[in-house]
Amino acid sequence: MRVKPLGDRVVIKRLEAEEKTKSGIVLTGTAKERPQEAEVLAVGPGTIIDGVRVELEVKVGDKVLFSKYAGTEVKLDGEEYIILKQEDILAVVE
Amino acid sequence: MRVKPLGDRVVIKRLEAEEKTKSGIVLTGTAKERPQEAEVLAVGPGTIIDGVRVELEVKVGDKVLFSKYAGTEVKLDGEEYIILKQEDILAVVE
Amino acid sequence: MRVKPLGDRVVIKRLEAEEKTKSGIVLTGTAKERPQEAEVLAVGPGTIIDGVRVELEVKVGDKVLFSKYAGTEVKLDGEEYIILKQEDILAVVE
Amino acid sequence: MRVKPLGDRVVIKRLEAEEKTKSGIVLTGTAKERPQEAEVLAVGPGTIIDGVRVELEVKVGDKVLFSKYAGTEVKLDGEEYIILKQEDILAVVE
Amino acid sequence: MRVKPLGDRVVIKRLEAEEKTKSGIVLTGTAKERPQEAEVLAVGPGTIIDGVRVELEVKVGDKVLFSKYAGTEVKLDGEEYIILKQEDILAVVE
Amino acid sequence: MRVKPLGDRVVIKRLEAEEKTKSGIVLTGTAKERPQEAEVLAVGPGTIIDGVRVELEVKVGDKVLFSKYAGTEVKLDGEEYIILKQEDILAVVE
Amino acid sequence: MRVKPLGDRVVIKRLEAEEKTKSGIVLTGTAKERPQEAEVLAVGPGTIIDGVRVELEVKVGDKVLFSKYAGTEVKLDGEEYIILKQEDILAVVE
Repeated sequence: MRVKPLGDRVVIKRLEAEEKTKSGIVLTGTAKERPQEAEVLAVGPGTIIDGVRVELEVKVGDKVLFSKYAGTEVKLDGEEYIILKQEDILAVVE
Repeated sequence: MRVKPLGDRVVIKRLEAEEKTKSGIVLTGTAKERPQEAEVLAVGPGTIIDGVRVELEVKVGDKVLFSKYAGTEVKLDGEEYIILKQEDILAVVE
Repeated sequence: MRVKPLGDRVVIKRLEAEEKTKSGIVLTGTAKERPQEAEVLAVGPGTIIDGVRVELEVKVGDKVLFSKYAGTEVKLDGEEYIILKQEDILAVVE
Repeated sequence: MRVKPLGDRVVIKRLEAEEKTKSGIVLTGTAKERPQEAEVLAVGPGTIIDGVRVELEVKVGDKVLFSKYAGTEVKLDGEEYIILKQEDILAVVE
Repeated sequence: MRVKPLGDRVVIKRLEAEEKTKSGIVLTGTAKERPQEAEVLAVGPGTIIDGVRVELEVKVGDKVLFSKYAGTEVKLDGEEYIILKQEDILAVVE
Repeated sequence: MRVKPLGDRVVIKRLEAEEKTKSGIVLTGTAKERPQEAEVLAVGPGTIIDGVRVELEVKVGDKVLFSKYAGTEVKLDGEEYIILKQEDILAVVE
Repeated sequence: MRVKPLGDRVVIKRLEAEEKTKSGIVLTGTAKERPQEAEVLAVGPGTIIDGVRVELEVKVGDKVLFSKYAGTEVKLDGEEYIILKQEDILAVVE
């Protein structure tokens, strides 16, 4: 991928409705807090804590649940991506 | 469980009224702060503090009291779950 | 006790007026900040600071003064308890 | 004293006007921020910082200036006391 | 470059529309949060964390995405630059 | 001096207009943020950081510029003093 | 210089328009956030971090860009100066 996120940021691509149906996940809750499913396309190098680099928990290819309004949308080569901090990712879906 | 929470997050399933009656717990207080009982289904790997990973105190199968409005609701394979941070869990019920 | 608080939380039971009279303590101040007397029924395992677990200062059986509106009320087996953080306990009464 | 404060809290008793006159201290300023003179009756064990317990600077018997509206008032055996954090004590008066 | 940013600050120059078209990046989202593409012209020496200097992740010549309203605009020798903190840079574009 | 400030607090006495004229310092700016000149009469023992006591930078006898509305005014033996934190002192004047 | 700033504070003197023209720098942006050019006249000793004194990055004689409304204005011996924290200095101009 051509976009390399900094620090503890991650680049994800939102999964479409068909894929959601296939995985059987339906997300509920208020619209404002409703999480969404996405695939991780790139991860930052992590952050330095106490002199040691702490790598991110998610990795490229992970399917994740994230807070809908977190992060910043970017369109690259006609595709839409989201750059967000790992702390805005709730869980990995297997 | 197919949902793996990140960091110090936990996946829980709210216990229904029948189970509450059986355990003898009735929760009081204002509606806004009323805790609820749930079962822990998955726990995150914990957080890194001073270079050491600190694991979560709760474990899969624990019955817990949690703040009603904490976390995010997720529906997976027809079941409803809640993903929340461990700090929003008040206590384990034995 | 069947409720095990997490981290630096404590389970207390409010002492009734008769006990207050017996101990000679009368609490004054504005209603909002008036502390109340209670007995400690269960204490959490403490928190991890710099990789070392720091245990709580209060122990089961302590009579304590706590901020009236701190914590969350829970009813268990017909009795009412309060789960609060140790930092909301002002002092131990001997 | 029967009240043992937790952490970095202190129990003090406000000094009356006669004592203030004797010590020659008159406190000025706006009513809201006007400090008051008191005697320290009990001190907490201090706080744990970097794994080491840091004891309080004030000790029982010290005359101190404190922020008037800091802390919580408690009446014990007919006497009124104040429980406050050491950080709300401005200075020791000799 | 004649402007040397302090600490974890970076000097960047906004890339014009033609360059954006060439790289194929189109940025979307609300106007307020829309990131923009720029080139890094100078980087600060980094910050001291736990006694060790942590250098910046970006380097001179990097193409970056940054939050549009972050930083301060400066005009030098007829050219406009932006001085911002590295934390306001979202990602490097390759 | 009879007042011993705690922690990183300092006791200062405001210098009168005549002294200001002599030193040649005139303070400008909005009334709210206008600094004032004073002499340091007592300094606290400093604070504990990482287990080491860090002493204050100012010492008794220093002439200092401080933020006018910082700190608390105290009258002792007919004289007015100000107790403030060292962080509210801007500079030492030589 | 007769004014010695404390901690991570710096004393600067605003550069006049003629000097700006000579250096070729023109500052743009909204009035509120517009940086200004100044010369550093005195620097504080720095701050103690993890037991080690961290000196300031700027030094006497540096030409710097700073946030216009940061700091406090002081008039000394008929000249106007500004005392501000180093973090309000954006960059050094060479």
